Formats: sequence, C-alpha cells, structure tokens
Amino acid sequence: MPLADEKCSACTPDSPLVSDQQAAELLRQLPDWQIVPFDNINHLVKAFTFKNFADAMAFTIEIGELAEATNHHPTLITTWGKVTIHWWTHATSGLHRNDFVMAARTDRVFAKF
Amino acid sequence: MPLADEKCSACTPDSPLVSDQQAAELLRQLPDWQIVPFDNINHLVKAFTFKNFADAMAFTIEIGELAEATNHHPTLITTWGKVTIHWWTHATSGLHRNDFVMAARTDRVFAKF
Repeated sequence: MPLADEKCSACTPDSPLVSDQQAAELLRQLPDWQIVPFDNINHLVKAFTFKNFADAMAFTIEIGELAEATNHHPTLITTWGKVTIHWWTHATSGLHRNDFVMAARTDRVFAKF
Repeated sequence: MPLADEKCSACTPDSPLVSDQQAAELLRQLPDWQIVPFDNINHLVKAFTFKNFADAMAFTIEIGELAEATNHHPTLITTWGKVTIHWWTHATSGLHRNDFVMAARTDRVFAKF
C-alpha cells in the first residue's frame, strides 16, 4: 500500500517512535524530505517551491485542511513562492509513522500544483 | 492618521529605508512587534496565539489575502495555536514604512479573533 494511503493512527504518549532504521527505509519513499532536529526533537522537513505567493498560500490552505481532517498538525512556513513543511509528533517528542504518512500525503497534494 | 490606514506605496529598490530613529518611533505604535535580523536583513516580527489550529489557519489565510491585496508579502509561520509573522521589504533589503503599516494592519486583523 502506498505510504500516503496508510491510516494515521491516534498518537498517544506511548505510541512507538520510528527507529533510525525504519526512518531510513521510509525516507526512501519520500524524495527530498529530511530529518532535522529542532530543540532536540526530530522533524520531517521539506521545502516546496511555487511560481508566486498565491499558489504558496493555496498549498498552505490545503495542507492545513488535511491536518485538521487527520488531527495531526504540522508547522507551515509560507513566503513568496515557497512553503516549508515540518511534520513531527508532539505527544511522543519524535517521529512516528504518522509523520511519514503525512509527508507522503503532502507530496500527493503538491503534485496537483 | 492611524498607521493601519496609511497607504502602502510601491516598494522599489530606491525606496528609502526607515532610519533607526523612525523605527523606534513607529514601534511605539506596534505593541509586541520586534525588529529581528535574519541573514543580515531586518524583519519586523510578532507571534500571535490562538486557541487551536483552525483559528491559526484562519488568521494565516486573512493575512495572506491582505498581502495579495497590497502586493506586499510576509513570511507566515503557522503551527497549532500560534502564527508568527515577519514583514520586511525584499526590494530594499531592509525595513520600509510599508512594513510598519502592514504590521499595524495585522494587529487590526488579529483583534477580530
């Protein structure tokens, strides 16, 4: 099953984190996504480019709707022609399989632009 | 005239930058806005808090519409319960009076939330 089609399970403080080996395997399915630590918490990060501000905003809005629908919320950094997205799991202070699923869904939304 | 009601003039590379003294005077009208350098360019920055992700997104969308309407574009950092806004002038690599006008308009939009 494509990563983007996996169900996001509820994240609770005792949800298992993704191991380094699992993360490396999942990243192979996610071109240009990188794991970057922020305040000692790993984030899954990718920058997307657009031809103007309006398209960057439209993408931001779609990812915001996706986040609300799955109750899993990223950080969205929107500026002229560029949106940077961070996925991470607040409850577990690290990366969960859900973050990789949301990254795959983000790429699927971007493909429409 | 309230700062928020001033017209934003077009920013061109030869538009005058705001002096340090002018910036200090303008900041007195803009509670909690700070001047923060990023890559040697001064940005006008403020964080706004919200009760959830949906309100943070709604605010982001309104500021995005304001930016398009005035053709002056900020960086918007949206996450659960928080939006951080950066105004600065790309063409002049520094702060222009327009940035302070847009900051005042941002506060006016926030007052509705």
